[in-house]
Amino acid sequence: MPELRKDPIIGRWVIISTERAKRPDDFKKIPVSDHPDQGSCPFCAGREEMTPPEIYAIRNPDTEPNKSGWKVRVVPSVSPFLGLEGGYDSWGVGIYDVLNGFGAHEVVIETPEHIGNMTDLDTEQILNVLKAYRERIIDLEKDERMKYVLVYKNYGKQAGGSKIYHARSNIIGTPVVPKRVKEELEGARVYYSYHDRCVFCDILRQEKEQEVRLVYENENVISLCPFASRFPFETWILPKRHNCDFHTSSDEELTDVARALKIILSKLKKGLKDPHYNYMLHIAPFKRRHPGYWTTIYNDYHWHIEVIPRLTRIAGFEWGSGFYICPTPPEDAAKFLRELEI
Amino acid sequence: MPELRKDPIIGRWVIISTERAKRPDDFKKIPVSDHPDQGSCPFCAGREEMTPPEIYAIRNPDTEPNKSGWKVRVVPSVSPFLGLEGGYDSWGVGIYDVLNGFGAHEVVIETPEHIGNMTDLDTEQILNVLKAYRERIIDLEKDERMKYVLVYKNYGKQAGGSKIYHARSNIIGTPVVPKRVKEELEGARVYYSYHDRCVFCDILRQEKEQEVRLVYENENVISLCPFASRFPFETWILPKRHNCDFHTSSDEELTDVARALKIILSKLKKGLKDPHYNYMLHIAPFKRRHPGYWTTIYNDYHWHIEVIPRLTRIAGFEWGSGFYICPTPPEDAAKFLRELEI
Repeated sequence: MPELRKDPIIGRWVIISTERAKRPDDFKKIPVSDHPDQGSCPFCAGREEMTPPEIYAIRNPDTEPNKSGWKVRVVPSVSPFLGLEGGYDSWGVGIYDVLNGFGAHEVVIETPEHIGNMTDLDTEQILNVLKAYRERIIDLEKDERMKYVLVYKNYGKQAGGSKIYHARSNIIGTPVVPKRVKEELEGARVYYSYHDRCVFCDILRQEKEQEVRLVYENENVISLCPFASRFPFETWILPKRHNCDFHTSSDEELTDVARALKIILSKLKKGLKDPHYNYMLHIAPFKRRHPGYWTTIYNDYHWHIEVIPRLTRIAGFEWGSGFYICPTPPEDAAKFLRELEI
Repeated sequence: MPELRKDPIIGRWVIISTERAKRPDDFKKIPVSDHPDQGSCPFCAGREEMTPPEIYAIRNPDTEPNKSGWKVRVVPSVSPFLGLEGGYDSWGVGIYDVLNGFGAHEVVIETPEHIGNMTDLDTEQILNVLKAYRERIIDLEKDERMKYVLVYKNYGKQAGGSKIYHARSNIIGTPVVPKRVKEELEGARVYYSYHDRCVFCDILRQEKEQEVRLVYENENVISLCPFASRFPFETWILPKRHNCDFHTSSDEELTDVARALKIILSKLKKGLKDPHYNYMLHIAPFKRRHPGYWTTIYNDYHWHIEVIPRLTRIAGFEWGSGFYICPTPPEDAAKFLRELEI
């Protein structure tokens, strides 16, 4: 019999196939890129004029902005979802609500070299990318119009990636807290108010004890396949220290996150043959002091990264019901990834 | 500037691109099937022995079950997500919750002929399919273990459809109310408790007045592109009569739903060049009398069908945030579909 498992954070049920469980080789392979196109890549070192001027960069000493000599560059998106003009402006259209599409959309160019998969960067370079995320979140927090920042990566077409192969990630600042994050915040709050404990900390504790869904662990970070995985080989990276804000992570913590990312992405690349994937950084909303309201504190929340290889298609059942069918039990996925030599 | 629009039912924000809005021809075309494979199709008339025995069929008079002479057949899925064994059995694994994967998974074979797209059936045959849905929901309601029935269709690979071309839809009975439906129920309840009106009825009223998002209307049914469309050319079909239960629809109402489906699917086929699509039927959960509880009545809810052409890919931003980017304003989509001659 399949099992229905409930996500302990947001209460979503997932169907976990236990009988005809899919093995890593059962998924269809789609090559990540037919167009490595190094010759015209706008993100390679030496072509800085092909992007808008940089907002932030980690650079070698004595190099000029928008010239070579950088390690990581952050530039505005040339096709932003949301624009920086205007402010928070909301109006009604009959029964409907509309908000000015204000926000930020930045692109993090993760390497000056023409490398596509973040896992092929060394750990130090991945750390630079994480430091760029941290600095950009700190900077965007200063803009009072922003309520939330979402950092994510699309690698490969199946993951919504573009044709341009060069490794990069996206930073989106939004004037509202996204629904998915709201659900996690509410779930974490309900759990905390009952147990006086963080649901993510409880997950870490139980996963460390049971070990069956653990993939990797170092001093500051744990990586696991979640109990109610939506997708085969879905893997989360969580800090051991209870902290809702990624941007208050120390260099030591970020170094361990970089190590975990390098290892998890390498295992996925080797074990699943360079799958398309997304990752998303979930953090607490910015703590704003609104007139007439107390500041909301999110100390029942716990930031984390969700890595999702895109091996299955989402069909009408998932869209219609919001519950997912995961053909590979997370215990099998974790064992495979844990034991895979890289 | 793009607009952020709020779904009035579940409160999800959607980014609607208004500037570089995508036109119907801007979407990449992927052929629906390379394998029309009529020769070995297990769903064609005359090959009834290739499926499990039928649960329900609409048949010509004097024809035998599991022989030719049917118009619509419903059979158990050969690869069900959920199985019929066991009952409602729930247990804890530390902090986690598990439920026996009990449920029903049935396949509705929509035509004895080897036709792939429902829109190529005539209206009378589409009505037969809707009647089969109605009968199966009525029958599944009798099983006290079922809490919900979801009916949906996957047409084409991008919509999660299989390689077998023959038109069919799926019926899933579940022991829990799916998250997505729960959100709609809660949203509808909150709206009703404030306004003393159904949110869906209010949508119908406003859309009839404004006309800009209307696609088609007949005596019993309205079809529109929702104000906060998640997907380009997303189109809903709603009954004018306030009713939470599809399975209490009259033959006259179902006839008008069949007419609307035929027209909407034909317009999508012609205007978007045979796109892959899903549709989902959203109904209220079964009204069960649980020991110690009052029966929950869902008379603030309103059943409807959501038709979603699969033209865009879902990327990390959508997964991470739960808010969607729709590159075609629903007003443009509705105008295009409304004016398209078929």
